[in-house]
Amino acid sequence: MDQPMKMESQVWRYENGVIHIVTDTIVTEYPITIVLNEQEFATLVCSPDYIEELVVGFLASEGIISSYKEIKELTIIEATGRAIVNTHKVNKLNEMFHSKRYVTSCCGKSRQSFYFYNDARTVKPLEDVDVTVTIDQCFHLMRLMQESSVIFQDTGGVHNAALCDSNGIVVDRTDIGRHNALDKIYGHCLQHSITLSDKVIVFSGRISSEVLLKVAKIGCGIVLSKSAPTELAIRLAEELNITTVGFLRNHSLNIYTRPDRISIQSVESHI
Amino acid sequence: MDQPMKMESQVWRYENGVIHIVTDTIVTEYPITIVLNEQEFATLVCSPDYIEELVVGFLASEGIISSYKEIKELTIIEATGRAIVNTHKVNKLNEMFHSKRYVTSCCGKSRQSFYFYNDARTVKPLEDVDVTVTIDQCFHLMRLMQESSVIFQDTGGVHNAALCDSNGIVVDRTDIGRHNALDKIYGHCLQHSITLSDKVIVFSGRISSEVLLKVAKIGCGIVLSKSAPTELAIRLAEELNITTVGFLRNHSLNIYTRPDRISIQSVESHI
Repeated sequence: MDQPMKMESQVWRYENGVIHIVTDTIVTEYPITIVLNEQEFATLVCSPDYIEELVVGFLASEGIISSYKEIKELTIIEATGRAIVNTHKVNKLNEMFHSKRYVTSCCGKSRQSFYFYNDARTVKPLEDVDVTVTIDQCFHLMRLMQESSVIFQDTGGVHNAALCDSNGIVVDRTDIGRHNALDKIYGHCLQHSITLSDKVIVFSGRISSEVLLKVAKIGCGIVLSKSAPTELAIRLAEELNITTVGFLRNHSLNIYTRPDRISIQSVESHI
Repeated sequence: MDQPMKMESQVWRYENGVIHIVTDTIVTEYPITIVLNEQEFATLVCSPDYIEELVVGFLASEGIISSYKEIKELTIIEATGRAIVNTHKVNKLNEMFHSKRYVTSCCGKSRQSFYFYNDARTVKPLEDVDVTVTIDQCFHLMRLMQESSVIFQDTGGVHNAALCDSNGIVVDRTDIGRHNALDKIYGHCLQHSITLSDKVIVFSGRISSEVLLKVAKIGCGIVLSKSAPTELAIRLAEELNITTVGFLRNHSLNIYTRPDRISIQSVESHI
């Protein structure tokens, strides 16, 4: 992909009572349209790197594929911003139910946790997850992710997600869209058959229900965030057996669900 | 709408080497499905207030309606999370082109600014916009918006948007979704026929291309943000005649486009 992730732009900067013309670094956005089995499926607006991973992760997240080998062809056509995807099996039902509302009963169920068919169908509570981290590791992993994101440091305009184990970062991705950063990680895991039961997701943004569902689909038992979760995300995390840690800043953090996976003892401090 | 905007939740808080169990305030999320002329159209996940405004603003933003009077019926059914909308005129073409990719030529046009049909069709460059603000007013309006958002101060988990004139805030809205906050403002403007040529949008989040397009659709000539714009948003702002101001923090700010509408002289300081 020849598209740049950031560009220089002339900016009028006001500071201390004076306006100067300065050159600033600005993140780019790139629209990519997924054409799935010869039908336009969705347009994602993203940061233009790891587009294949993004497409694979997005299709898995939407319930269209459940493994990488279900994809027969995946071609990115940069000139028109299209990703041509053909799958071995065409499941019209999955495509039809894409982003369709899931309502379990006709009334009185407004507190239901799942609101899309594909989530209710694809997301299962995590089992066989034996990951635990210490509080010190939480701070350490968040610091590693923040240090590794050069684009974020330059421009302040993107989200970062990292897949980590107890030794550090396994893979990290950056995107202007919070969901895209996670979909790129998901696509990478599917393409490389990465074991997830011992992994942790570290994320720069808020833990919304959509973010929590993506963590569950990827298959990680712990998510760490600098920001706050929503009430629906907490409810889903309880149902799906995911440990959520938020407001991870300086030397304090909040644990919202499944605190048994976070230990306060620094058996072996990484700091 | 009886749904709460925030809830209390038990949290394990780590600070200074100790974990305490404390009660924290968490924002809620509410999925609302728009059923348009008896067809499921979209599901928005939002903060549960001003749902009617959100639905009106979203449909206008997607090019389904161009004025409030095109809506024949709008009923919110809280129990099932549905908004039943019927319009006087059913335009199947508009509904069909909803979120479909707009490609102007077959190749070499990857730098095109519009990527959705409905945007290319509905967004026009702003004319007859005579709004100007001073640098002091920029800081003043941002401070007013931040002070007015009680939910943000409590929970740190939402976006805020405010429609302002030179006297202060006309209407402000809060949502977990950045676009929803702007759609609520848009819906309010359409429902109350608010004049927009002298107004300014103040926004808590990043100015992405989607945010910039919403500002253009609402019809405001100036957008102020605490955060950064993207390169595509800057390009769209130039095409659409919108002044973008970002990184508005403490006593400094950046002007990215149309700086002629921002004056450095405090003719009459509001501070």
